[in-house]
Amino acid sequence: MSPTLTPTPLRRRWPVPPDIEIAQAATLKPIADVAAEAGILPAELERYGPYKAKVSLAVLERLKDAPNGKYIDVTAITPTPLGEGKTTTTVGLSQALGAHLGQKVFTCIRQPSQGPTFGIKGGAAGGGYAQVVPMEDFNLHLTGDIHAVTAANNLLAAALDTRMFHEWRQSDEALFRRLFPIKDGRRQVARGLRYRLRQLGLSEDDLERLTTAQRRKLVRLDVDPETITWRRVVDTNDRLLREIEIGLGPDEKGFTRRTGFDISVASEVMAILALTTSLADLRARLGRMVIALSREGEPITADDLGVAGAMTVLMKDAIKPTLMQTLEGTPVFVHAGPFANIAHGNSSIIADLIALKLVGPDGYVVTESGFGADIGMEKFFDIKTRYSGLKPNAVVMVATVRALKMHGGGPKVSAGQPLDPAYTQENLPLLRKGLVNLQHHIAVARKYGVPVVVAVNRFATDTPAELAMVREAALAFGAFDAVVAEHWEKGGAGAVDLAKAVMRAAEQPSEFRFLYDLDQPIKAKIETICREVYGAAGVDYEPLAEERIATYTRLGYDKLPICMAKTHLSISHDPTLKGAPRGFRVPIRDVRLSAGAGFLYPLVGKMRTMPGLPTRPAYLNVDIDPETGQVVGLF
Amino acid sequence: MSPTLTPTPLRRRWPVPPDIEIAQAATLKPIADVAAEAGILPAELERYGPYKAKVSLAVLERLKDAPNGKYIDVTAITPTPLGEGKTTTTVGLSQALGAHLGQKVFTCIRQPSQGPTFGIKGGAAGGGYAQVVPMEDFNLHLTGDIHAVTAANNLLAAALDTRMFHEWRQSDEALFRRLFPIKDGRRQVARGLRYRLRQLGLSEDDLERLTTAQRRKLVRLDVDPETITWRRVVDTNDRLLREIEIGLGPDEKGFTRRTGFDISVASEVMAILALTTSLADLRARLGRMVIALSREGEPITADDLGVAGAMTVLMKDAIKPTLMQTLEGTPVFVHAGPFANIAHGNSSIIADLIALKLVGPDGYVVTESGFGADIGMEKFFDIKTRYSGLKPNAVVMVATVRALKMHGGGPKVSAGQPLDPAYTQENLPLLRKGLVNLQHHIAVARKYGVPVVVAVNRFATDTPAELAMVREAALAFGAFDAVVAEHWEKGGAGAVDLAKAVMRAAEQPSEFRFLYDLDQPIKAKIETICREVYGAAGVDYEPLAEERIATYTRLGYDKLPICMAKTHLSISHDPTLKGAPRGFRVPIRDVRLSAGAGFLYPLVGKMRTMPGLPTRPAYLNVDIDPETGQVVGLF
Repeated sequence: MSPTLTPTPLRRRWPVPPDIEIAQAATLKPIADVAAEAGILPAELERYGPYKAKVSLAVLERLKDAPNGKYIDVTAITPTPLGEGKTTTTVGLSQALGAHLGQKVFTCIRQPSQGPTFGIKGGAAGGGYAQVVPMEDFNLHLTGDIHAVTAANNLLAAALDTRMFHEWRQSDEALFRRLFPIKDGRRQVARGLRYRLRQLGLSEDDLERLTTAQRRKLVRLDVDPETITWRRVVDTNDRLLREIEIGLGPDEKGFTRRTGFDISVASEVMAILALTTSLADLRARLGRMVIALSREGEPITADDLGVAGAMTVLMKDAIKPTLMQTLEGTPVFVHAGPFANIAHGNSSIIADLIALKLVGPDGYVVTESGFGADIGMEKFFDIKTRYSGLKPNAVVMVATVRALKMHGGGPKVSAGQPLDPAYTQENLPLLRKGLVNLQHHIAVARKYGVPVVVAVNRFATDTPAELAMVREAALAFGAFDAVVAEHWEKGGAGAVDLAKAVMRAAEQPSEFRFLYDLDQPIKAKIETICREVYGAAGVDYEPLAEERIATYTRLGYDKLPICMAKTHLSISHDPTLKGAPRGFRVPIRDVRLSAGAGFLYPLVGKMRTMPGLPTRPAYLNVDIDPETGQVVGLF
Repeated sequence: MSPTLTPTPLRRRWPVPPDIEIAQAATLKPIADVAAEAGILPAELERYGPYKAKVSLAVLERLKDAPNGKYIDVTAITPTPLGEGKTTTTVGLSQALGAHLGQKVFTCIRQPSQGPTFGIKGGAAGGGYAQVVPMEDFNLHLTGDIHAVTAANNLLAAALDTRMFHEWRQSDEALFRRLFPIKDGRRQVARGLRYRLRQLGLSEDDLERLTTAQRRKLVRLDVDPETITWRRVVDTNDRLLREIEIGLGPDEKGFTRRTGFDISVASEVMAILALTTSLADLRARLGRMVIALSREGEPITADDLGVAGAMTVLMKDAIKPTLMQTLEGTPVFVHAGPFANIAHGNSSIIADLIALKLVGPDGYVVTESGFGADIGMEKFFDIKTRYSGLKPNAVVMVATVRALKMHGGGPKVSAGQPLDPAYTQENLPLLRKGLVNLQHHIAVARKYGVPVVVAVNRFATDTPAELAMVREAALAFGAFDAVVAEHWEKGGAGAVDLAKAVMRAAEQPSEFRFLYDLDQPIKAKIETICREVYGAAGVDYEPLAEERIATYTRLGYDKLPICMAKTHLSISHDPTLKGAPRGFRVPIRDVRLSAGAGFLYPLVGKMRTMPGLPTRPAYLNVDIDPETGQVVGLF
């Protein structure tokens, strides 16, 4: 017998108060109740305080024969720099399905990086009356997963640099004696060194009769410093760390090197967390991460360093999704938050797998992919579902009148600047010109064989004529349906029509197909994405990219899917080109490898992997009320 | 009615298995049961999984009129580099009191840094049959407090460098316009900027009529880069980060600077966490941390940057102690783990305050201070109890035959090296010569008016004659009692005699007194510690130290207690001097300020604040069993 949801009634106010006020005024269910309603057994739940809990992967084993629910991906047209309310729509749609239409529903979203919360971006838990709560927990440490990613990433970095330092300072003989010491008359072989032995075709019995060359090869990874791709990470917007020189201390004897820090969510470890399917798979993926090449050109992995086991131990709790709730009491998994350019920008496979089992065949799992459909949705289909084996049933395409007007040639939209009146007054010609962007994204989604429901996320200044124009155009472009949604103002009640349309769309027979086959050559896969998804006329490769493609093909990494690192502000590679540009050629500057996550990522232009703090950062408003312990000024 | 403890029976094996095997074979009580037995109400408990929980500071309010329990500090003679089992004794004594003698007891210990767990040190949860469990949780992320310290520390670092960068790039006019923007016709004053306004004697109404000089002073902190003392931190042993150059990226336009990373537990934020008494106190301490001087020589604080509120928000859960349990089911608070040289090396005041209320007047709180009595105990008395207002009732002085033989002139003891037979065979003359070290520490403890119980932590190779010699000497040196303890092998059953002696000692009338008064000059306080605690003939100040003392006196920081940053391997400043050296003069190289934690720390020699990884680091043995999810190879 399936448990049922008791919705949490919203007490709405007008005008809509700031997000944190709504969140702090909310009535929350104890997380154990949320879990019980969702069908999670007490033994599968690890509470983290009253309103958060981790959920064990044991659910997957218990329900392995149960049928999956319907799988809905929320994506968007090409956004303005302000964002178009994709998370808000994801949450609002879930509230409508669960709290208003009596459906079993689970929301699966990403955990945001803590850095931007104190920079310019603010929180990322939805907004208005469509939020995940408690929003402070959501935006800050949560259950520590990003901290675990940071720890694992930086342990590998320290292991690599220190190993290089020790190899530089010591003879083969000394390295061997220290790495394989004799204790109580027996040669000690640490667990983490067995991989390297196996790689070299050696067994523990061979250790006493190694040739000089074999011993050298065993103890000396001989990393070529020029090839190191692994960087350190920190979950803080710290631009001064983008490029640094390390090893300047006197004890480091001149062993210096240029490197830098990325923000934690840019770590390959985060991409792995989002794509893994089990603890054993996590261990294997961490082990095969390639962090450099040897001077002989062979890949050096985390397993070569013997550190992947310890990294997995650091990640053993992070692999469990965190359960939270929406303002209307429906269940939410928050799990993993990889970058959407140098990584695939989708929440975790594990959360989706568990949620699909929990909601059952009549239920819905609503997840969200980062940036516009050309990026997040494309990677959702071609990378995430490829590794999960899941079939999506419908796509929700979020559009706003504001963004469409920008695509029609409207004035520049910038964070922190007042909006031009073009965006706050009716302007049908501008809007009409921008509809090509919506048309393009709908066409792309349909290439994957999945029905598209357009959600027009209504702003207060949108006029009925504008909303009607978007809706009619969407239907003409081939959307299964198009619905105006008001969840920001009204919560789930404002997204009931959207939810009904999504339910109908998900009833359609699924004809899901990938865009490309993995056994095509690297360039063919890149070109398929650029032509079919971006509408490019062709692709140009810089010499570095050509060299990398040759190297990765030689090393056997050419069968991986492609994760394009491209701007999200245009369908093309050029952020200034709005609408649906045509005739452009995509320049590929470099191609990089995430062997553990399992993709190659071509760089189209320069991707920033460490944000900065503005002159007036968001942290200036954040404080604590020492009497109540409540957070103030987070938004 | 006071709840009672149900002890967890030990199923001991012989020979004693590795720590992790004992820990993983243990039967654990659900943490809610541990809490209930300890008198913690369900509403005061935030569970973090089945065996950890955070405890709310609301306990202090609820029990504010209840009398405190007896307060016991566990310290040690000068240790060998292997450590002499202080944590093990702390835990074993608690198990004896609670599980064998029916006493109400709470253990309060530090959270270890994660970095050394993967380096050379291994775990720190006790050992043998006297451990805190689950030991994996204890040694890894626990409930995220160190991660919160890292985040708060690094937000401040990024705030400082980015503010300097923006001041460097912008005119006073531009800074003012951006820091105090006009929105909807009104000047916006962020919460975090109000402190600076107040400091300059300005109100928000003055903003429209500032003089050029006032505006400049308001928006320009004008930090002197040469005076910056704030460093970044990471909870990883990463020696290459000890000294680095930052700002080398093209977008940073040549704004470079030399700095470095410390390990997270060396952060002043950690020292503050250990010394704070409430959320309001935490906020105030974070705000008054001095991180640099302006070019005019004025202190620049976290409040000047407007970042202390956000730092407090990051620390709002870390301020709550984490509840765990011993192998015999007695309750443990794990909370804060500041360095014992550049900081005071004791667990948190808040945990002690809560525990003393919970055990009540007939109960015992057993806490531990870092390194030998000359360091951790001295700081426990002169810094920690000064800020807490608590009075200790007894000191347990841990001694080992091994360490005493070393002080008698025995061969060098090194981690990872086999012990010389001098330590594993009976050698009474060597032992006798080393007893001076014990004599010295007992005498120091007695200067504070607190009775001393010597715990001889027995090793398998110690002979009855050796143990008897230590015991008799301790009594002759003025110890209240001296007892051989075997908790490592036998759990609480092996420390029952020790526990009985501690109970008797704690019945003595307390005559606790501080060693020095705060209103003495800085030099007088330093000299009192050096003469009275170290037995030095005098103190010498290098010019830098003289200069700092003058500066801190001028700025009004001379009324703070002193936290000596000294080696723990000798009572003197010279780690090679064993026993109880006399006639030496202590060289003070530098004096630094932790204005938020509330102490000055004179540097005696060079203190390492970032450990390295050895050629064969501990992580090589650590892995996960993917089938069971169990950690293997942690020790």
